[in-house]
Amino acid sequence: MYRLALIGFGNVGQGLAQILLKKGELLERRYGFKASIVAVATLRKGSLYHPTGLDLQALLAAGQAGSFDSYPTTPGLIRGRDPLATIRATDADVVVETTYTNFQTAEPALTHVCTALELGKHVITANKGPVALAYHEIAALAARKQAFFGCEGTVMGGTPALRLARMSLAGCTISGARGVINGTTNFILTQMEQGQSYADALAEAQRLGYAEADPSGDVEGYDALGKLVILANTVMGLTLKFDEVTRQGITHLTPEDIRAAQADNMRWKLIASVKTSPAGTTAYVRPERLPLSDPLANLDGSTNAITYLTDLVGAVTLVGSGAGPEPTGFALLSDLLELHSQDLLRKL
Amino acid sequence: MYRLALIGFGNVGQGLAQILLKKGELLERRYGFKASIVAVATLRKGSLYHPTGLDLQALLAAGQAGSFDSYPTTPGLIRGRDPLATIRATDADVVVETTYTNFQTAEPALTHVCTALELGKHVITANKGPVALAYHEIAALAARKQAFFGCEGTVMGGTPALRLARMSLAGCTISGARGVINGTTNFILTQMEQGQSYADALAEAQRLGYAEADPSGDVEGYDALGKLVILANTVMGLTLKFDEVTRQGITHLTPEDIRAAQADNMRWKLIASVKTSPAGTTAYVRPERLPLSDPLANLDGSTNAITYLTDLVGAVTLVGSGAGPEPTGFALLSDLLELHSQDLLRKL
Repeated sequence: MYRLALIGFGNVGQGLAQILLKKGELLERRYGFKASIVAVATLRKGSLYHPTGLDLQALLAAGQAGSFDSYPTTPGLIRGRDPLATIRATDADVVVETTYTNFQTAEPALTHVCTALELGKHVITANKGPVALAYHEIAALAARKQAFFGCEGTVMGGTPALRLARMSLAGCTISGARGVINGTTNFILTQMEQGQSYADALAEAQRLGYAEADPSGDVEGYDALGKLVILANTVMGLTLKFDEVTRQGITHLTPEDIRAAQADNMRWKLIASVKTSPAGTTAYVRPERLPLSDPLANLDGSTNAITYLTDLVGAVTLVGSGAGPEPTGFALLSDLLELHSQDLLRKL
Repeated sequence: MYRLALIGFGNVGQGLAQILLKKGELLERRYGFKASIVAVATLRKGSLYHPTGLDLQALLAAGQAGSFDSYPTTPGLIRGRDPLATIRATDADVVVETTYTNFQTAEPALTHVCTALELGKHVITANKGPVALAYHEIAALAARKQAFFGCEGTVMGGTPALRLARMSLAGCTISGARGVINGTTNFILTQMEQGQSYADALAEAQRLGYAEADPSGDVEGYDALGKLVILANTVMGLTLKFDEVTRQGITHLTPEDIRAAQADNMRWKLIASVKTSPAGTTAYVRPERLPLSDPLANLDGSTNAITYLTDLVGAVTLVGSGAGPEPTGFALLSDLLELHSQDLLRKL
C-alpha cells in the first residue's frame, strides 16, 4: 500500500484521485497495486491529512468546491499544514507534486521535490518547472537517496512520451526528438486553417480552457521550449539549458501565411526540435511549414506528437491527445505503477 | 553475462548479432548488459557451439556465406547439433527463436520455445507462429518455470508496439487496437497510388525483398491477421483465435478503386482491427478507405502504425517502419534488456 501526499490539487491531482476512485479495485486485482491518499496540501484550497487515508469521494467534492473546509471532520483528521510541513511531518512514502509550473525558478515545486527526496520519499510530478530546470540534479539526489523520481506527465500529458523513449527504446541511441508538443498553439493553427483570425482562435482556445488568460506561455513557445528541454535531458541524456534553444512563437503568423501554406498542400505547425551530432546540439522552437506526408503535419486540434530519431530502428512517432485531468492523472499513475513493479521485483 | 543460443540465423538473428558486435561495449557501459552468443543452430546453415562464446565477426561472415562450414574451427568448438539438441545440451540461459513462421502448427518453433522454457531457460522470439497460436499456454509455462518470455519483434518489427501497450500504457484498459501492420501491402498500395498496376507493384515489392515469391501470406491478409491475434492476446488479454477474425486481402483492389479513393481525398489501407465491448469482440483484416485526417492514412511505403484505444488517455498511435534485420534485431535486444533490468532489480 503506497501512502500518497498530494502537493497541489488542481486538474492533475484531481485526475489521479478520480482514477484511484474509479479503478482502484481493478488496479489491485490486475497489478497488486494499492494506494491511499493520506494527505493533500494546496496553496489555496487548504490542507488535509489523515493517517488512515482520506475519503476520495469527499476529497474530490471538496476539491471541486474550491476549499477543503467542506471535507468532513473525522477523528484523527489534521487540517492546515502547508506543503512543506505536509512533506516533512506526514508518513507518506510518495509525494505527488502538481503545483503550478514556474520556468524562472521552478519554485515552489523544486523545494517540494528536493525536500521530499532528501527525506527518502519517492517523488512523482507533472510539474514541468523542476524537470526543465534541474532534472539532472534531481535525478542524482533521487539516486543517492534510493528514491524513485517520475515525471511522465510533464510532456504530452498522459501520452507516454518519456516512458516510450526511456523504456521501450532502451538500447537505441536517440539522436533527435522533433514534435508538436503544445496543444494550444496546434488548436489555434487548426482553427486558423478553417478561416478564423488569430484573435478569434485564441479567444476560443481560452473559452475552452486550452489557453490561459495570459496566453504568452503557449503562443510565444515557452511551454514547448520547456518540454523540449525536458525531452533532451531526460531521454537523450543531454544537459540542454533554456537559453540554448532558439525560440519563435506563432503570434506573427497571418491568415495569409496559413492560406499560402494550404495552397501548397502544407500546414504550419509549431515544431520543437533537438538534434545531436558530433558537431554539437541544435535545438529550436519555431513554426514550420510541413508537407502533408510528414507524420507531424496531420495533427488536428490539441493532438500532440513526437518523432524520435534512433540509430537502430529509425524514426518512431508517438501520437496522442493526452491533455486533460484524467489523462494527466494517468501519467502520475503510470509512474506509480513503474515504482510498484520495481518494488515487486526487489522483493522477489 | 547472458549466454544466448540462437535457433535460426536469418535476417533477424544476424541483425541481433550485428547489434551486439557494434554496440556491445556501449550496452555494457550504459546498462551493465553483457551477452555472448554461445550457440547458433539452424535448419540449413549448420550449427555451432562454443562454451566460451562464438566470434561475432566470423559468425556473421559465415552466416552471410550461407554455411557455417567456413566458421573457423577452434579448440572446444562443437558443430552439427540440431536445434533441439542445442537447446537441451548447451548451457545457454537464453534461447532466441527466429526460425520461419508457420501459422498452421507453429512448428518447429513452438517445440523449440516450449522445450527451452521447460528447461527453465528464458525465451525471446520474433517468430509470429507460436505467439499467434499459443501465447497464453507459453506465458503460463514461462510463469511456472519463472522464465522470461519476450516476443516484441512479432509485431511492427523493431517499433516497440507490444512494449508500449504492455508497459507504457499499464494502468489503462485497452479496448481496441487498429493498425496498418503489414508493410508489403502498404508498399503495394502506395505504389498503386502512384499509377503502378497491382502486378507491377507486387513485382517491385518482390524485387526489393519486401514480398516473398509466394506473396499470399501478405496480400491475402494472413500476416496481418496473425499479428492482430498476437496484439489481441498479448496486450489486450483476449483469447482470440484465427478463425474468429474476418479476413479480406488486397488482391481484388483495382487501379480504379485506388483512383476513386484519391479523388475523394481518401486512401486505401489494409486495416487490422480488434475491439472489445460488453457485447463481445469484433476482429477483422480488410482494406478500408480512410480520410487523410486518420493517423493511419498518411503512412507511405512499408511504414506501419497501430492506434490503441484506451480508457484513461484516449487514442494513442505509434508509427514506425521497424522492418529489416537491424530493427528486428533491436526488438530481440529490447526483450533482453527487459530481462536484464528485471534481473538487476531482483538482485537489489
